[in-house]
Amino acid sequence: MDTQNGITATAPAGKIPEPPEPHLPDDQWGRRAWELLQKLRSRAPLIQCITNVVSMDLMANVLLAAGASPAMLSSLNEISDFTPGVDALCINIGTLSEDGLASMRAAASVAAEAGRPWVLDPVAVSASDFRMEACLGLLELRPAVIRGNASEILGLASARRIRNSKGVDSSHQSLDAVEAAKSLSRSSGAIVAVSGAVDYITDGHTVVGARNGVSMLQKITATGCAVTALIAAFISVEPLSALEATACALSIFGVAAELGMEMATGPASLRMHLIDSLDGLNEHVLVSRMNVFRVS
Amino acid sequence: MDTQNGITATAPAGKIPEPPEPHLPDDQWGRRAWELLQKLRSRAPLIQCITNVVSMDLMANVLLAAGASPAMLSSLNEISDFTPGVDALCINIGTLSEDGLASMRAAASVAAEAGRPWVLDPVAVSASDFRMEACLGLLELRPAVIRGNASEILGLASARRIRNSKGVDSSHQSLDAVEAAKSLSRSSGAIVAVSGAVDYITDGHTVVGARNGVSMLQKITATGCAVTALIAAFISVEPLSALEATACALSIFGVAAELGMEMATGPASLRMHLIDSLDGLNEHVLVSRMNVFRVS
Amino acid sequence: MDTQNGITATAPAGKIPEPPEPHLPDDQWGRRAWELLQKLRSRAPLIQCITNVVSMDLMANVLLAAGASPAMLSSLNEISDFTPGVDALCINIGTLSEDGLASMRAAASVAAEAGRPWVLDPVAVSASDFRMEACLGLLELRPAVIRGNASEILGLASARRIRNSKGVDSSHQSLDAVEAAKSLSRSSGAIVAVSGAVDYITDGHTVVGARNGVSMLQKITATGCAVTALIAAFISVEPLSALEATACALSIFGVAAELGMEMATGPASLRMHLIDSLDGLNEHVLVSRMNVFRVS
Repeated sequence: MDTQNGITATAPAGKIPEPPEPHLPDDQWGRRAWELLQKLRSRAPLIQCITNVVSMDLMANVLLAAGASPAMLSSLNEISDFTPGVDALCINIGTLSEDGLASMRAAASVAAEAGRPWVLDPVAVSASDFRMEACLGLLELRPAVIRGNASEILGLASARRIRNSKGVDSSHQSLDAVEAAKSLSRSSGAIVAVSGAVDYITDGHTVVGARNGVSMLQKITATGCAVTALIAAFISVEPLSALEATACALSIFGVAAELGMEMATGPASLRMHLIDSLDGLNEHVLVSRMNVFRVS
Repeated sequence: MDTQNGITATAPAGKIPEPPEPHLPDDQWGRRAWELLQKLRSRAPLIQCITNVVSMDLMANVLLAAGASPAMLSSLNEISDFTPGVDALCINIGTLSEDGLASMRAAASVAAEAGRPWVLDPVAVSASDFRMEACLGLLELRPAVIRGNASEILGLASARRIRNSKGVDSSHQSLDAVEAAKSLSRSSGAIVAVSGAVDYITDGHTVVGARNGVSMLQKITATGCAVTALIAAFISVEPLSALEATACALSIFGVAAELGMEMATGPASLRMHLIDSLDGLNEHVLVSRMNVFRVS
Repeated sequence: MDTQNGITATAPAGKIPEPPEPHLPDDQWGRRAWELLQKLRSRAPLIQCITNVVSMDLMANVLLAAGASPAMLSSLNEISDFTPGVDALCINIGTLSEDGLASMRAAASVAAEAGRPWVLDPVAVSASDFRMEACLGLLELRPAVIRGNASEILGLASARRIRNSKGVDSSHQSLDAVEAAKSLSRSSGAIVAVSGAVDYITDGHTVVGARNGVSMLQKITATGCAVTALIAAFISVEPLSALEATACALSIFGVAAELGMEMATGPASLRMHLIDSLDGLNEHVLVSRMNVFRVS
C-alpha cells in the first residue's frame, strides 16, 4: 500500500491515505498483469533512465518491447527541463560516477516534487564506500521501489558493505534476503523486490513471490537492470498499487524469458527471443504462465 | 545542390559553384543507390561518430555492415590529431553532456576546415534549453546534412522547444515537418531529412520522398541514430550530391529493414536480420525494392 | 614464461623464478584449452573491465558465456575498495578520456600491488598523441598481456604513431607485426598477442600461432575488445602460464566464431551464435577444432 508505506510522492497531494490494497488472490495475478500491460501499451509512458552504460541498449529495447517510451538523457543541465514531464524515472548505479550521481540526485528530487515515481537499482552496492554512500543518500529521496539481487538488498538493508566475491552478481539466494527486504521497505517506505530463482516483493508487511523466469538470464548482462526499468514503467501506469505493479513487471519479464528459452540455444539467442516474446505477449499465454503467490 | 546550399565545406576550395544536381528520374534511384553502395564498400570510408551511449553498438555495427569503418573516439584531446583524417563525421546529441558538446564543436570545426562533411542528429532537441542551444550552436558550424524525426525538425526549424510527450520519439508525422525542413535547409545550408513512415529529404527547394522501411523500426532503440551515421558514410563517398546520397542511405537502410522483417518475429530479431541483410544486400534486390520519388 | 618476462606481479611475492614453461606440443593445445576453460567455468573469476563504451555489452556477455563474472565499474572513487578483490583487470582505451585514463592508471597500479594480472588493449593507439602517451604510461604499470591488431602493435612497439587510414581497424597483416610484438614483449615484460587471420602470441622468444576464427569477425564491432577481456579471464585462472592462457583464450573465441559461422547469415547473427557457441562449447568440439602451432 502506497500511502501506508509513505510513498506520498505517488499519491495526489492532500489526499487522505487510502486503506491498504486488498490482497490479490493467487489466481488473479495473470488477469491483473494483463490489465497493467494493456494500460502500459496504450499509454506508452515516458520513462527516463539514468543508468549504467552496459545496460542502456538492453534497457531501452526492453522498454520499447513492453510498449513504453525510453529516454536515456542524464545531463544535470537537462533535469529541470525534462524530468518534470516524464511518467517515471529509473536510477541505476551500475557505472556510477560523481557527475552521474549529481544527476541522479537532482532527477530523483525533481521526480518526487513532480509526483512522479522513481525506482532505484543499487547495483553492486557493496563494491565500494562511494557506492554505498550514494545509495544511502538516494534512499532519502524516497524511491517508490528498490530492486536488487539478494546480496545487494542484504548490503543496502544493513547499510554496510557485505563481502561478495561475485562483483555485480549475487552470492546469496533471494530467500536469504526476504527479512532484510521487509526491514528495508519499512525504513525506506519503498516497495522492495529481491530478484532470484524466486523473486520476492514486499511492502514491509505483505510478501509476494514470483516464480517466472529462467536461470540462463544470469548469463545475459543487464537483465536485472532492464527489469528494474520495466518496474518503473509499470508503476507509472498504476502508482497506487506499486506492490502489484512491481510483481507484475517481474513476472511478465520472467514469462517472456520462459517463452524465449523455448527458442533459444544459448544466452545471446535467449536475449533476442525474450525481447521478441515481450513484444508479442498475449493474454492467454501470460495468464496461463504467471506464477505469483502470496508468501505472507 | 551543394554549393547552392552553401555546403562549401564539401566542395574544393575556390571552386566555382556547380549548377544544381540534375533531378534523378524516379526509376533511376535504385541504380544510383547501388552505385553509391558499391563505392562505399570499395572505399571503406572512415566515419567518426561522436554519439550517444545508447546508440554506439548499433551504429558501429550498421556502419560495418554497410562497408564503412567506424571510429567512436570523442575525447577533446584527440580531435586535432584524428578528425582531419576521417572521411566524414557524425554528431548525435542523444546523451549530451558539457564535455561531449565541447568535443562535438571542436570536431565539427576541424571537419569543416579539413573539407570533410559532417551530419547532425538533433535527438530530442526540444527536451531542454541546453539541448536546443547546443544544436543551434552546432548549426553555425555548417553540417552537410541534418536528419531527425518530425518533432525534432519542427523544433529545430523554429529554434524553440515544442511540446513532445514522447521524449526521444516523435509525436508528429513526417509530412507535417516538410515545410519546416525546407526552411531549415535554406537557413542552415544543409540537406534536411525527416524520418517517418515516409522519409522526406530536401535541399530547401527539391523534396524527395523515400518509402522504404517498416514500422517496427520504432521499437528498436537507436535505429534513427544508426541511419544518420549511414548518411555520413554515403555523403563521404559522394559529397557533391548530398541530397541523393542522403536519400539513398535512408532507402538502403529501409530496404534492409524490409528484408529483415521477412525473417523477424519481433524487434530484436528484426535488428539482427536488418544488419545481416544490409551486409548481404545485392543489386537485384536493392533496385527492385527502392521506392524513392520526387515530391516537388 | 612469466617470471622470465618480468611479470612478477602475477607470481607469489618472494617466490623464486620458475624455469620457463615447457613448450606444449602442437597436438596438446586442445586438451590444454579445455582444461583452462573448465577451470574458468568452475571458478567464475571476477574480471573488472575499464573499457570503451562501444564494447561493454559484448564484452560482458562474452565473459558471462565463458563462465566469468564481469564488472564494468570504473570510477576513480571505487578502485581502492573494489580492485583488490578482482581476479584480473582488463583495460581498453577505445573511448579514452582524461577521467578514464586516471581510473585505468589507478586500477592497474592497485592490481599490480595486489598481485592480480591485468591486460591492455591499445585500441587505435596511433590515432592521437594523447592515446599513444596514455599507452606508454600504462606499459610502465606492467601489464601481463597486451593484445592488439597489427597496426596497434606496430605503433606501440615503435612508440610512435603510424599512419592508419582505417581508424580502429588494422591496415596491416598480423604477420607483419610479429617482430614488433617480440620486441614489445621483451621491453614491456608482457605477453604480446597480435590478432589477425592468424593470431600470433609471443613472450619475446617463443612465438605461437593460432588459426581459429572467421574473417566476418571484422564486421562485428568490439570483437577484439571482447577477446582481450577473455584473455584476462584465462590468465586469472592460470597466471603462471600466461602465454598458454592467452593462446587458449584467442583460439577458444575463434572456435566459437567458427561454430557460430555455421549458423550465421551475416555479422549480427554471427555475433549471437558465437556467444551461444561459447556458452555451450564442449570438449570434443574444442579439441577437434583447435588449431594452435609453434612458430618459433
